Amino acid sequence: MAHNLVTLDLEGVLVPEVWIAFAEKTGINALAKTTRDIPDYDELMSGRLKLLAEHGLTLSMIQEVIATLQPLPGACDFLDRLREKTQVVILSDTFEEFAQPLMRQLAWPTIFCHRLEVRDDRVTGYHLRQADQKRKAVAAFRGLKYHVIAAGDSYNDTTMLSEAHHGILFRAPDKVKMEFSQFPAFETYQDLLERISDLLEK
Amino acid sequence: MAHNLVTLDLEGVLVPEVWIAFAEKTGINALAKTTRDIPDYDELMSGRLKLLAEHGLTLSMIQEVIATLQPLPGACDFLDRLREKTQVVILSDTFEEFAQPLMRQLAWPTIFCHRLEVRDDRVTGYHLRQADQKRKAVAAFRGLKYHVIAAGDSYNDTTMLSEAHHGILFRAPDKVKMEFSQFPAFETYQDLLERISDLLEK
Repeated sequence: MAHNLVTLDLEGVLVPEVWIAFAEKTGINALAKTTRDIPDYDELMSGRLKLLAEHGLTLSMIQEVIATLQPLPGACDFLDRLREKTQVVILSDTFEEFAQPLMRQLAWPTIFCHRLEVRDDRVTGYHLRQADQKRKAVAAFRGLKYHVIAAGDSYNDTTMLSEAHHGILFRAPDKVKMEFSQFPAFETYQDLLERISDLLEK
Repeated sequence: MAHNLVTLDLEGVLVPEVWIAFAEKTGINALAKTTRDIPDYDELMSGRLKLLAEHGLTLSMIQEVIATLQPLPGACDFLDRLREKTQVVILSDTFEEFAQPLMRQLAWPTIFCHRLEVRDDRVTGYHLRQADQKRKAVAAFRGLKYHVIAAGDSYNDTTMLSEAHHGILFRAPDKVKMEFSQFPAFETYQDLLERISDLLEK
């Protein structure tokens, strides 16, 4: 007998990529880069903060954009059905300040992520809770004797997929699927839910 | 800057004591004993399973009773408000088979608990995910760099209260409050929410 727990990435899996949506609204194309483009997260974030400062963009302005976003079509139903079957924790490299309006729409699932440093409504830095936090969270859940199934779409998910008992790629770009071909890859919530259900230990 | 996480006991804090409710429905008074009466959990559970077998009670019968229970008055609103403020994980020594109808009413918060062994609708045993699981979960969250605030009402909560950065007793019986007087004790959800809010690190 096992106790099951599913960890999910957030952006690209349940909600749109927040920085891409923000880039579209502001017209600053360089802000559209994600971990899919720049695997080194610190390099990616430093570039983003520099761009925010250069353009005088405040946290309030970012949050206003995020409040207009919605979960991906079908994501709420998928997550509702999954939470009836097993325990779910979202592991994301987003920030609490960005996640909240989206978590509300997803009915407040538990999310482990990071926090921003904000001064006078300016984003002055960011505070990673810990490096490689997704993998460490899965390792911690295994230490708590959970049978862990992890799903994500990008480079920053691959260490958690490897650490889990079962790793799954969801809507990953082709280069991630080719580079990490050891993980099965799915494109629809229906297929993902069926695969996870099959992997849940009785 | 810190990342905050709150761990809550379930029975007595958010929902009624399931075994007490079951005892009332079936008239088997001995089933009303809880960890408040018998601190040794294995001793308590072995006694419960023996009584279930003696009286021919099935899992379905137990689940029918649980489905008629409701969260304690004010618990849903308290938990909703808390989940808007911070991350919450329920740590309970109940079983997944018992928890589900109550988790649905609480809007599916994440819960770490145990599982029953069931054969032909008879409860034949129980599978503790791990010993001292509440304390170990708090230790794991600390390892993930969370600032942990824990609240519970009974003996089986005291190790998690000690392991957390801040431990709080909620609606604890007098003997627990006297024996563990190092923890502040509250009786209303309003007071508990205010205390937790004060303890959340900015």
